[in-house]
Amino acid sequence: MSVHELARSIGSSRLITDPAVMDSYRRDEAHLAEPGHPAAVMLAETAADISEALKWATAHRVPVVTRGAGTGLAGGGTAVEGCLVISTTRMRSILEVNPDDQLAVVEAGVINADISRAADEYGLMYAPDPSSFEISTIGGNIATNAGGLRCVKYGVTRDSVLGLEVVLADGRIVRTGRRTVKGVAGYDLTSLLVGSEGTLGVVTSATLKLQPKPKRAPVTVVGSFDSLRSAADAVAAVVRGGIGPSLLELIDRATLRAVDDWKRIGLEDNTAAMLIAQADGVDADAAAAAMQKHFEQAGADFVAVSQDAAEAAQLLEIRRLAYPASERLGQCLVEDVGVPRSKLPDMLESIDRAAAEHSVKIMTVAHAGDGNVHPTFVFDRTADGSVPEAVWTAADEVFRRALELGGTLTGEHGVGVLKRRWLSLELGEDSMQLHRSIKAAFDPLGILNPGKGF
Amino acid sequence: MSVHELARSIGSSRLITDPAVMDSYRRDEAHLAEPGHPAAVMLAETAADISEALKWATAHRVPVVTRGAGTGLAGGGTAVEGCLVISTTRMRSILEVNPDDQLAVVEAGVINADISRAADEYGLMYAPDPSSFEISTIGGNIATNAGGLRCVKYGVTRDSVLGLEVVLADGRIVRTGRRTVKGVAGYDLTSLLVGSEGTLGVVTSATLKLQPKPKRAPVTVVGSFDSLRSAADAVAAVVRGGIGPSLLELIDRATLRAVDDWKRIGLEDNTAAMLIAQADGVDADAAAAAMQKHFEQAGADFVAVSQDAAEAAQLLEIRRLAYPASERLGQCLVEDVGVPRSKLPDMLESIDRAAAEHSVKIMTVAHAGDGNVHPTFVFDRTADGSVPEAVWTAADEVFRRALELGGTLTGEHGVGVLKRRWLSLELGEDSMQLHRSIKAAFDPLGILNPGKGF
Ligand SMILES: Cc1cc2nc3c(=O)[nH]c(=O)nc-3n(C[C@H](O)[C@H](O)[C@H](O)COP(=O)(O)OP(=O)(O)OC[C@H]3O[C@@H](n4cnc5c(N)ncnc54)[C@H](O)[C@@H]3O)c2cc1C
Ligand SMILES: Cc1cc2nc3c(=O)[nH]c(=O)nc-3n(C[C@H](O)[C@H](O)[C@H](O)COP(=O)(O)OP(=O)(O)OC[C@H]3O[C@@H](n4cnc5c(N)ncnc54)[C@H](O)[C@@H]3O)c2cc1C
Repeated sequence: MSVHELARSIGSSRLITDPAVMDSYRRDEAHLAEPGHPAAVMLAETAADISEALKWATAHRVPVVTRGAGTGLAGGGTAVEGCLVISTTRMRSILEVNPDDQLAVVEAGVINADISRAADEYGLMYAPDPSSFEISTIGGNIATNAGGLRCVKYGVTRDSVLGLEVVLADGRIVRTGRRTVKGVAGYDLTSLLVGSEGTLGVVTSATLKLQPKPKRAPVTVVGSFDSLRSAADAVAAVVRGGIGPSLLELIDRATLRAVDDWKRIGLEDNTAAMLIAQADGVDADAAAAAMQKHFEQAGADFVAVSQDAAEAAQLLEIRRLAYPASERLGQCLVEDVGVPRSKLPDMLESIDRAAAEHSVKIMTVAHAGDGNVHPTFVFDRTADGSVPEAVWTAADEVFRRALELGGTLTGEHGVGVLKRRWLSLELGEDSMQLHRSIKAAFDPLGILNPGKGF
Repeated sequence: MSVHELARSIGSSRLITDPAVMDSYRRDEAHLAEPGHPAAVMLAETAADISEALKWATAHRVPVVTRGAGTGLAGGGTAVEGCLVISTTRMRSILEVNPDDQLAVVEAGVINADISRAADEYGLMYAPDPSSFEISTIGGNIATNAGGLRCVKYGVTRDSVLGLEVVLADGRIVRTGRRTVKGVAGYDLTSLLVGSEGTLGVVTSATLKLQPKPKRAPVTVVGSFDSLRSAADAVAAVVRGGIGPSLLELIDRATLRAVDDWKRIGLEDNTAAMLIAQADGVDADAAAAAMQKHFEQAGADFVAVSQDAAEAAQLLEIRRLAYPASERLGQCLVEDVGVPRSKLPDMLESIDRAAAEHSVKIMTVAHAGDGNVHPTFVFDRTADGSVPEAVWTAADEVFRRALELGGTLTGEHGVGVLKRRWLSLELGEDSMQLHRSIKAAFDPLGILNPGKGF
């Protein structure tokens, strides 16, 4: 195979082969994944570039790893040895914002938050908002089916994707889905591609559903609890009560401590968990009052309701600082189990137990209203640079417990490379086999992101 | 192949081979589809029955047509010659209603409306409500990704399906999806199976999302217009205004006349179209007032807002009578195009033009808030019992126009047999090829509902 051949067809300004420059395209935010060395990195500018690249990759059997911003937490975007990395970061055009049909058409490399900014002048928003919304690309969001803070009310990425333009492994460009809100002609290839972690095709652009912005600013409810169990019980009560918060996040003691040590937020000694909730409909006040009641009934020490935007922003900042605050304490393995919402108390207890039994530090935040829990395993590497065995043992226990509770290994981050060894536990062998046949239908040579996902 | 062999393994009480009895299992509501003669009809009681049947069908290469209630309008449930029909009508158990996790687990043959009835005591509902909700099965709804009146606010069937139990062509039973609201482990096989019209597997049970019932009874807004265009403009304005109705239906003059001739609803001579809208949130009054304003601004002759449940029921009854009223006038071909919502006026005009040019009677109702239009072609069969050529010519024009407008052949009824010849126009050859590979991945022998869907 010759990279020069590719350089000739797409133009050498779009191709990097200098190992030093390529180094920054080898990893994502899954620091435990071991990246290989790419043969080249392509800074794609058009779908045609990507089509050329995939024809070339097919002809030469070169593995292809697509990446957006590289903020992924499962290792889906890490380079494999000898691969072509396709970076979409130059594909940043918002091609259309259509207020009449409430949709946008955007290139894959557009940053999530830029879509809502473009829609704002029409009173619209793009709803899915991963915490990484200011840095991650829509292509990466689509490939991982990203969730976010407000998806408890507005749905995950898949719920907002109407159609895609995708380059197949052999370089053909296909369109899936449509510009209509409903449609049943053919199989739902769009949903199949969403969450496929770059293993079925390369997304080059997307038609996205926009939604009217909430009619009023959110009301925020914050509660602190002296036990994790009672915070989780409060969440279960809010779900059962059908209140429909637009945000419902949980932060555990370890995380709060880490944030407090860093930023001095005035944490009380006996706080074991904090809940931050919002409601944004016209009935926001009633919903906030109902949540306040549920928090109190579940045994909160302290509950406050606020209409103040600045105060709300401060509280959410604590949630956003969770990840950087844990990174200050050591190496991090950010996990992402999901359980049926009534099982949240059990899941949180099991995480605490695994931490205690294996003497592993676990800091937990959760998109609690969705039953989606992020236990972050914090540790120091051993003398030889590897991950302590106890971390994997504890993680293994947490994963198995999530499955026992009727849950999933991954609520929103994807399987990537880090969760592959557990996947068949969740899916079962027959389903794994179906997955392999679907993969073969899209990518018979297996060149797309090999070793990732399923 | 021997049907006796199958009868021995599943019990002969579950197998019908009497042609007279089998006759009622040959057709669905697509009267233009020509059904074949089944070799046998199985009244399945369990997933194990269906697994046995599919092992047998695989061994003997027998085509299998699954059917729920047979209310389908695209011919997906019509028998093919020599097939085994699997009927799910005996699989009527609601296995679980779980208010804590807001989900239900039901067998495939459960009638749609029974799910909401079971959820009602917990203040929950199963949202997707096709007009056939009192007669169609959840299995059929899933296989067609059925829409309904309130899906303009609450989404279509796919949006409410969390997981499935499915029997594969070779008899293996697999589960897809999960009981959690979020999850990204593996490909989204659930969404792929939803809308697959019995061509990828037989759905035996489903885990469904339930939603809190609306907090208050809906407010109804009705408007009559002296031109179809102004009614369609009113719809476009409501969508653009981000009002979020829970129902927004359009009925044209021909349909209103047919209902009036039959039931005497007191139709005015100059009424060209009627809109029925509802809003059901806490802000229902504000939404209703906003819709009233949009209707008036678009030129309605008459607008009324009502809080009265009986009055609302009467209005919706007019909408529900549309189909039986058109059936009284002749043979019906019920079509189902969808367009981006801003194109609704253009689509309706094109339908009128096609009717005039080809002298074909077309009666139109629409799930207008979704841009989903049902033009019903009403005609008499020719002397030799066939469909007049002008009907297909006009239908062809309507389909092509929908595609030109960025729309789809079918918003909710499916492709079945009736729309197969147009499908590649919408999907394109590359996508059709992907469809074929996916089909082969699930059903390598092609025994599942051959000749249907794509
Ligand atoms: C601080 C922080 C907060 C986060 N918060 C959230 C959160 O709230 N919710 C959440 O879900 N995730 C969250 N994440 C994870 C991450 O941001 C998401 O997974 C995001 O969707 C990745 O986008 P990206 O552009 O960085 O993609 P990358 O990391 O570059 O790639 C992710 C995966 O998508 C594939 N891919 C990327 N682009 C394409 C394309 N165009 N076509 C095909 N495949 C493609 C890659 O191969 C890889 O498998 C967070 C991460 C960080 C660091
Ligand atoms: C008066 C009337 C009003 C209607 N209103 C609407 C409406 O508002 N919205 C709408 O979307 N549709 C509507 N329909 C169409 C129809 O009711 C829907 O398509 C419905 O989902 C079909 O359900 P069924 O149980 O009758 O399925 P069937 O007609 O028996 O089958 C439909 C398709 O699903 C497949 N299938 C059925 N069960 C299974 C299973 N368990 N596993 C795999 N495949 C299966 C069949 O093979 C076939 O392809 C209406 C029909 C009528 C007659």
